[in-house]
Amino acid sequence: MPQLSKKGYELPQSAIRKLVPFADEAKARGIHVYHLNIGQPDIATPKGALDALAHAEIGVLSYSPSAGMLSFRDKLCEYYHRFGIEVNPNQIIVTNGGSEAIQFAFTVCFNPGDEIIIPEPYYTNYNAFAKLCGAVIKTISSDIHSGFELPPIEEFEKVITPKTKAIMICNPNNPTGYLYSEEELKKVAEIVKKYDLFLFADEVYREFCYDGYKHFSIMQLEGLDNNVVLFDSSSKRYSACGARVGCMVTRNPEVYSIAMRLAQARLSPPTLGQIFSEAAIDTPTEYFEGVGNEYLSRRDLVVEYINKIPGCFCAKPKGAFYTVIELPIDDSDRFCKWLLTDFSYEGATVMLAPATGFYVDPEKGRHQARLSYCLNLDDLRNALKCLEEALKVYPGRI
Amino acid sequence: MPQLSKKGYELPQSAIRKLVPFADEAKARGIHVYHLNIGQPDIATPKGALDALAHAEIGVLSYSPSAGMLSFRDKLCEYYHRFGIEVNPNQIIVTNGGSEAIQFAFTVCFNPGDEIIIPEPYYTNYNAFAKLCGAVIKTISSDIHSGFELPPIEEFEKVITPKTKAIMICNPNNPTGYLYSEEELKKVAEIVKKYDLFLFADEVYREFCYDGYKHFSIMQLEGLDNNVVLFDSSSKRYSACGARVGCMVTRNPEVYSIAMRLAQARLSPPTLGQIFSEAAIDTPTEYFEGVGNEYLSRRDLVVEYINKIPGCFCAKPKGAFYTVIELPIDDSDRFCKWLLTDFSYEGATVMLAPATGFYVDPEKGRHQARLSYCLNLDDLRNALKCLEEALKVYPGRI
Repeated sequence: MPQLSKKGYELPQSAIRKLVPFADEAKARGIHVYHLNIGQPDIATPKGALDALAHAEIGVLSYSPSAGMLSFRDKLCEYYHRFGIEVNPNQIIVTNGGSEAIQFAFTVCFNPGDEIIIPEPYYTNYNAFAKLCGAVIKTISSDIHSGFELPPIEEFEKVITPKTKAIMICNPNNPTGYLYSEEELKKVAEIVKKYDLFLFADEVYREFCYDGYKHFSIMQLEGLDNNVVLFDSSSKRYSACGARVGCMVTRNPEVYSIAMRLAQARLSPPTLGQIFSEAAIDTPTEYFEGVGNEYLSRRDLVVEYINKIPGCFCAKPKGAFYTVIELPIDDSDRFCKWLLTDFSYEGATVMLAPATGFYVDPEKGRHQARLSYCLNLDDLRNALKCLEEALKVYPGRI
Repeated sequence: MPQLSKKGYELPQSAIRKLVPFADEAKARGIHVYHLNIGQPDIATPKGALDALAHAEIGVLSYSPSAGMLSFRDKLCEYYHRFGIEVNPNQIIVTNGGSEAIQFAFTVCFNPGDEIIIPEPYYTNYNAFAKLCGAVIKTISSDIHSGFELPPIEEFEKVITPKTKAIMICNPNNPTGYLYSEEELKKVAEIVKKYDLFLFADEVYREFCYDGYKHFSIMQLEGLDNNVVLFDSSSKRYSACGARVGCMVTRNPEVYSIAMRLAQARLSPPTLGQIFSEAAIDTPTEYFEGVGNEYLSRRDLVVEYINKIPGCFCAKPKGAFYTVIELPIDDSDRFCKWLLTDFSYEGATVMLAPATGFYVDPEKGRHQARLSYCLNLDDLRNALKCLEEALKVYPGRI
C-alpha cells in the first residue's frame, strides 16, 4: 500500500483516547464506569432552543453563508454586548465547534516552526492543531499548589524567542478550572504589545465562574484589536456539545479575511446547529443561575472530598467544570488504566484523564489527573468513593 | 501587527467568491440575479427526515462519537449495500460535510510535494485542501467536445512521477456532469495497482444519473482495499447541504486509524445533522424518482437551449446537476462579472461560475463557464434567456 504522510503519523493521540478501549472492556464485564474524564455535561440543554429548532420551518436545508447565518452573527453581537464585548457581525466567523476556530487561527497565523506560548497544564487537543500547521508549543508552568494561577509575567519573557508568534490562554481554564483576573490579562497584554504577538483565548467556559468572580475577556483589552483572536462555542454554555457550533472572533481584518478563505473552502458551518444556537441566546438567566448553582455544589463536593483523601490535593477552581488533582500514585497513565482493567468497588469504577497529556513533558503530570465534574451529585459522590477505595489498594501507591 | 502565515496568504480564493460582491451590488440595484453559479439545490428536503429530527427526544444535545453515531454508521452500511457496496461501520468516519472527508484523506496521505492526479476541469475547492497539506495537483485534460470523458489511460501514465501518490475523480462529476463508466474505472484501477497509488473518489452525486446509466463506485473495484478512499455526503442526495454531514469510507485500516486522530482532535461531527441523515436513509424511492425526473427535464432544457444559442456549446451531462458550457466570449471572468455589473434583461441577470477556476491553467477555461441547473424550469428558462440576450450585447463577444 502507498505510504501515509509523516504528519499523519506524528499526530498526537491523547492519553484519554488510549484508555477508551479499556473502559469499553470494563463495561463489557458489567462494571459501571463513572466518566469523570470528559467534558460532556449531563445538564439538560435549554428546551426553548431545542423547541425553536423543532418548530423551524425548513423547506430546503440549505448551506448557510461560509461565515455563518447573518441573523445568528447579529444575535451573537447582542450576546457579547451583555458581557461588555463590542463586536460587529463582520468580525465573527461561525465554525464547526470551537475546535475549528482554533484550527483557523493557527493556520492563518503560524508558519512551520513558529512558537506559541501556553500556560501549562493545557487542553490536549491544542497539540493536534499546532502539529497540523507545524507550530511549536512552548509552555510556562502554573502550579497546582498556587491554584494554577498565571506565573509572574517574567516567566513569559523568559520563553519568548524571535520565533514566538502568539500567547494562548484558556479562560476559565480547561483542565485546571483557573480563572484569569483582569489584572493578570492586562499584564499579558503588555507582553503582547511589547513583542507584537497574537493573543488567543479559548473562552468557551465564560458562563462558569464561581464565588462571585466575573469573567474578563481578552476582547475587552484595549489597543490590541489587531492582536486578539477569541475562540468560542455553544457547546458548554448551553450543554450542546453536539450542535458543533463555535466561532472565531477578531477585529483584525486581515486575520478575518484569510480565515474566511478557510471557511469558504469547507463551504458552511452546520445550519441546524446555528438555528439552535441563535435561539439559545435567548435562554433565560434563570437557566444559567440553576446550572451555576449545580456546578458550584459539585465543585464544593469534589474539592472537599478529594482534600480529605490521604495523599490527595485539589485546588479550588474558580471556573469551568474541571480540576486537576494530585494523587499519591506512581504514574497516572498506569493508575487510570488500572482503574479500568483491575479495579472495581461495588460493581463500579471511575475513569479519569491522566494529566500526562496536559503537559509538554508528561513527567510533570505523572502524579496528577484531570477530573471533570459533569456528573450529578449522587453519581459524583459514588465516583469519588470509588477513587478513594481505589487509592487504598492500588499497587503503585506512593 | 504580527505577520500571518505564508500558507494562509497562498490559500486560493475561487473565481466565484470574487464575484459575490458584484452579485450583492446588482441585487442592491433591484436586479434579480438567477444563481446558476452554485450547487445549492432548490429541491425540497425529505420531510420525513426533517420530521424525525423535529420529533427526536433530545434531553442533552451531546457529542457523538468522533467517528459518528454508531446507529448512523450502521444505517450507512445498509444504504451502501443497496448500491452493491459492502462496508462495515468501522470503515466509515462521519465528517463535517464531504469537505472534511477530503481534508482528512489529504492530510493523512500527502507529504508536502506529493502529487495528486485529477482529471481537469475539476472542483475548485480541492485546491485549498491540497494547498493546506502541500500536495500538488497535476491534471489530465478532458475535452468538452467529447463530453469530458476520461482521457485514454496513457494520459495518466504520462503525468505519473515518483512523487505521484494518488488519483482522484469526482463521479458523477462536478463541474462537468460526466459519469465514469465501470470500464473506465477498471482501467484507472490498473494504473492504481501498477504504481501503488491511492484512489480517491468524490461520489456525492451518486443518485443523480440519467438516461438509464448506473453508477459504479470505486468501492466496487476488486483488490484495491488498501488504495481506495471514498468521499460522500448527505448534502446533494437529500438536498440538505446545511446538514454538514458527510463521510470518509475506506477499507484501509491504517488510513482509517490516522484519520481517526484528526476526527478525535475536532471531537465530533454534528449530532443534529446525523439524526437527520440517519432518518433520511429511509427516504422512499419515489422521492428520488421525482427528483431525478425534475433534474432530467432541467438538463434537457439547458442542453437544448444552450446548443441553440449561436456560438455556444454544451455536452450532454450523464449525471450530477452541472454542465460546463462553451461561450463565444473573450474571457469568462470578465463576462461573468459584466453580467452582474453592466447587464440586465427585463430586470434580471444571471450568475455563472467562470470555468477559469476549474483548471490549473486558467487559460483553458477562458471561454467556458459552469452552469448548475439547481433552479426550477421557469427560473431556469428565464436565466437562459438572460444569457442568450447578454451574449447578443456583450462587448467582448468573439
